[in-house]
Amino acid sequence: MTQIIQCIPNFSEGCRTDIVNELIKVGQSIPGVTLVDHTSDTSHNRTVLTLLGCPEGIKAVAVALAKCACKNIDLTKQSGEHPRMGAVDVIPLVPIRNVTMGECVALSQEIGRQISNELGIPVFLYEESATAKNRRNLADIRRGQFEGMAIKMQSPDWKPDFGPAEPHPTAGVVAVGARRPLIAFNANLSTSDVKIAQKIAKRIRGSSGGLKYCKAIGIMLLEENMAQVSMNLVNYEVTSIYSVVELIKVEAARYGVGIVNTELIGIAPARALIDCAEYYLQLKDFNFQQHVLESHI
Amino acid sequence: MTQIIQCIPNFSEGCRTDIVNELIKVGQSIPGVTLVDHTSDTSHNRTVLTLLGCPEGIKAVAVALAKCACKNIDLTKQSGEHPRMGAVDVIPLVPIRNVTMGECVALSQEIGRQISNELGIPVFLYEESATAKNRRNLADIRRGQFEGMAIKMQSPDWKPDFGPAEPHPTAGVVAVGARRPLIAFNANLSTSDVKIAQKIAKRIRGSSGGLKYCKAIGIMLLEENMAQVSMNLVNYEVTSIYSVVELIKVEAARYGVGIVNTELIGIAPARALIDCAEYYLQLKDFNFQQHVLESHI
Repeated sequence: MTQIIQCIPNFSEGCRTDIVNELIKVGQSIPGVTLVDHTSDTSHNRTVLTLLGCPEGIKAVAVALAKCACKNIDLTKQSGEHPRMGAVDVIPLVPIRNVTMGECVALSQEIGRQISNELGIPVFLYEESATAKNRRNLADIRRGQFEGMAIKMQSPDWKPDFGPAEPHPTAGVVAVGARRPLIAFNANLSTSDVKIAQKIAKRIRGSSGGLKYCKAIGIMLLEENMAQVSMNLVNYEVTSIYSVVELIKVEAARYGVGIVNTELIGIAPARALIDCAEYYLQLKDFNFQQHVLESHI
Repeated sequence: MTQIIQCIPNFSEGCRTDIVNELIKVGQSIPGVTLVDHTSDTSHNRTVLTLLGCPEGIKAVAVALAKCACKNIDLTKQSGEHPRMGAVDVIPLVPIRNVTMGECVALSQEIGRQISNELGIPVFLYEESATAKNRRNLADIRRGQFEGMAIKMQSPDWKPDFGPAEPHPTAGVVAVGARRPLIAFNANLSTSDVKIAQKIAKRIRGSSGGLKYCKAIGIMLLEENMAQVSMNLVNYEVTSIYSVVELIKVEAARYGVGIVNTELIGIAPARALIDCAEYYLQLKDFNFQQHVLESHI
């Protein structure tokens, strides 16, 4: 029974292709680990890798990538639209097959300890790995960003879990943690009015009273001149993709607006998509384990 | 690289639970073969098993099941709504993983030869295994059913591929062949008028000018008092599930009728369902190989 963990490290560099290519090369260099996706965004100035592998391989690749980022990315000279606190900003670990969340938490601790030891970067454990309530949410850890981290860390509330009490001078700090799979999903609207996307996002996201496990913002796609509802679905078994799509349609109709198309960023479990097929087809007595060929192989 | 073949033998017994249970037990008895689904229908008087396994295992289970059927099912005393020509009526083989259609054709020949040798049952190779054009289509081979087979086989056109020139006195004949995966899919309508289901079936099926790889009939579900469009989709990559669903909705609207729900009989490849999700979600630039987690594992 092979164990498989997904690791989706985020780096604060999305412009310099030589650095991005070096990260990709490191991501492909560890036996037992596959780089399945990489996306770089120049306006965000950020790169996200998606890796799958055995626990030992994921540990090795996470540490090697942190080294590469630390060597090449200097946050005192970096800027971009996306908030950031470290050269390698966050390292999420997701249990995929024959691995428990507890094993991913243990692995995040090992990775955190090694990064702090070898690179002198302070490490905060977050989400399922968090050692305090105020450290569960990545946005809370990152608040103040790289520039505000030295002062923030003077508070005992923000003593890191591993490593020095001050941020690394150029590589800042990093969050490492185990979490559930997350689906990054966007809906593009038939309008160029970003306010409509923002109003829809506010109606559908859990934080303002919408669907509990949906995070959403409204943004403008400048090149396409199109407004977008950009989402993270953090528990697709409860808040499924079709629920957010139907709710967006309902809210968009207020403004005479529709969905032009949608996008899946990175990868999603087959189950999350088949849930949508089950809804759309009105399938009766459907059971993933029983009716899907691949679940028998 | 494990080779996996799907085998879906059909038996002309759906009422006597002791016989059905014996077939199920035989289906579970061969190492390397998994019985993933079984359905019995009393009005059809028919049982369908769905098996997955390596080529050698599938060969062993197919022959063992034919023996069990031959011993227990006497077609001179059998009746039911579903047309039939043998105790084991048809043995389809479908390539699933690391197996070519050619290898499934070769296996169907081995299985056919062994069944005719050991049980004295005449075997017709059908679909991809057919040795003549008039033997490709199962319905053409079965026309006349068990009762008409002795006379039909006097024609040189219907000399079997293996075994004696006359049907087995109680077990009849059997068709064995390799074919593409088939999706058995039904749509239940908000009407008790079977004529509406029949009119819709005629509009959507390939044989009367509809979707090329869709076979469809309109039937009545007596217990539910509900008309049903019952379908076989014989090439889901071209004629996808969502196409038939949308076309049924369009045709049903003529009569003020809608789809109440749909049913998947047996198992379907994840891809066939994810195609529906892609359509429903209006996913942009979606690629199964790239975006579905399981395709990387």
